[in-house]
Amino acid sequence: MINRRIVLASRPEGEPEAANFRLETEETLPLGEGQVLLKTLYLSIDPYMRGRMSDAPSYAPPVGIGQVMVGSTICEVLESRTPGIEPGDTVSAFTGWQEYAVVSGRGLRKLKPEAGPLSHHLGVLGMPGLTAYAGLLNIGAPKPGETVVVSSAAGAVGSVVGQIAKISKCRVVGIAGGPAKCAWVTEELGFDACVDHRSATLKDDLKAACPGGIDVYFENVGGKVLEAVLPLLNDFARMPVCGIVSQYNQSELPAGPDRTSVLMRAVLTRRLRLQGFIVTDFVSQLPDFLRDVSGWLSEGLIRYKEDIVDGLERAPEALMSVLSGRNFGKMLVRF
Amino acid sequence: MINRRIVLASRPEGEPEAANFRLETEETLPLGEGQVLLKTLYLSIDPYMRGRMSDAPSYAPPVGIGQVMVGSTICEVLESRTPGIEPGDTVSAFTGWQEYAVVSGRGLRKLKPEAGPLSHHLGVLGMPGLTAYAGLLNIGAPKPGETVVVSSAAGAVGSVVGQIAKISKCRVVGIAGGPAKCAWVTEELGFDACVDHRSATLKDDLKAACPGGIDVYFENVGGKVLEAVLPLLNDFARMPVCGIVSQYNQSELPAGPDRTSVLMRAVLTRRLRLQGFIVTDFVSQLPDFLRDVSGWLSEGLIRYKEDIVDGLERAPEALMSVLSGRNFGKMLVRF
Repeated sequence: MINRRIVLASRPEGEPEAANFRLETEETLPLGEGQVLLKTLYLSIDPYMRGRMSDAPSYAPPVGIGQVMVGSTICEVLESRTPGIEPGDTVSAFTGWQEYAVVSGRGLRKLKPEAGPLSHHLGVLGMPGLTAYAGLLNIGAPKPGETVVVSSAAGAVGSVVGQIAKISKCRVVGIAGGPAKCAWVTEELGFDACVDHRSATLKDDLKAACPGGIDVYFENVGGKVLEAVLPLLNDFARMPVCGIVSQYNQSELPAGPDRTSVLMRAVLTRRLRLQGFIVTDFVSQLPDFLRDVSGWLSEGLIRYKEDIVDGLERAPEALMSVLSGRNFGKMLVRF
Repeated sequence: MINRRIVLASRPEGEPEAANFRLETEETLPLGEGQVLLKTLYLSIDPYMRGRMSDAPSYAPPVGIGQVMVGSTICEVLESRTPGIEPGDTVSAFTGWQEYAVVSGRGLRKLKPEAGPLSHHLGVLGMPGLTAYAGLLNIGAPKPGETVVVSSAAGAVGSVVGQIAKISKCRVVGIAGGPAKCAWVTEELGFDACVDHRSATLKDDLKAACPGGIDVYFENVGGKVLEAVLPLLNDFARMPVCGIVSQYNQSELPAGPDRTSVLMRAVLTRRLRLQGFIVTDFVSQLPDFLRDVSGWLSEGLIRYKEDIVDGLERAPEALMSVLSGRNFGKMLVRF
């Protein structure tokens, strides 16, 4: 089988560009015992991929130069030498930016077509959904009547965070980029308010939207949005730190002054709790997550939007789009 | 009774100076029903007092201009119109920078002279001790074999944090100012190592002292010390944030670049937990604290040092000393 794949050609300085990627063609290897041949149907495009392109220390090793870019996928099984997995099955895998892959059949999760659209398993029913569910409920620990603010509110994670916070009977305020996303967040997702982080009056807008202050801030972006949130956090507020996408393309630190002490002083005087997390820390909660979120989807309590491009060649452009906030909904590549 | 007291004359810009304080004399008021007349024996001098001199928002209201400076005290009861409190009793109070005070008898804690030196109730057996105990055990949650680092290691809080961490079977590394304090921390208090934050090689010294990284960092100072600690924190490290004394005298933010994103990136990728706290959040643990720490003191597992000056007039100088780290041991004024 002829496989086309995209490898990391060079490490980006700042924003990734087309030259950092290379499309290659290769013959797939014959199947060994316990392996399967997969055909990619959907590839998930997520902000964390920017981190894998750098060799700065992180929670996961970087993609090597010349290696295929990593990523979650939904695949069809073409051939199988793994008991229990049959040709024709659809599985959730982590085969990255390529059309075919030969991998071990262990650890593949078989999907039930009746559970909804397959692509949902890369979003609301996949890693982004679990990220939202586990981070909000375990670290944010929202209580009824509290105010929850989420940045990247129209994104794959943020949109689910806000809707679960509504289900948890909180006042929910989103922060998103541009009037179209803000309108969708309030009108379609049912957030109580959404403010535009591109507005010159972000700080005032957010303050007006949070008359009782902020009890939980689900952090996806960092930078100026964090600066606007900080003065509004109530005593004992919790901040699950899920991402700081505004910083991923930074090749040098922003100009001064050094505001670190502003953050530390807020942590001290208002007894804040900041806690970073990664979805893989919470895989044990996958069954609870699937049960709860599938239920909420079927009851119409959670809505979900996808932003789909077609063809492997468009994966680099899709990643650049996610990193700059140009996407609208969960970014996917369809093969 | 003629009372001498020190009031806040003006709010400091940066480091407090003598002109920010004013010594006044007044006649004490006659006792009302339920009140007591107290004579101050010891006044505790602590870094948080700098915060009370400013009108920036904080967890407690500022001292008003012309009002007596606040502070914890040990007092002798001279007269009492409160049942259960008799002249001659010694009590722990919060009467501030003055020689006499007429206050409500409610909420005063009677001290047992046989429990050790009275002044200990302003330090190892008082608020600083409870701060160390509650912050380390509740938020730091050290496990045997882990590495605990504490800044201001020779101070009233830090010295107790490190010794409780040793009792908890951790590797304990202090950070203190100058060779004399570092020597005392290792030789007298039994820390495994102590590094000098004034050294030009602080980062390397700390790295060498923590070959297995850092699992708990008890934060008292902020600034350059936090910068040195950050790269060494292990996955899932905890940071109880108790103070940022290096910043209290700051009248403007330090020069750039803005390193906030360095901290946030560490929180995210290493899943750190930062949590601010204030001793009053943990008053319910006072009985456990007194039982445990009294026991450790009598077994010789906790050692304790005081830095005492005599006379109310020296309180401003004592506070300036604490804020610049010139004191050595728990700072007290004896009357």
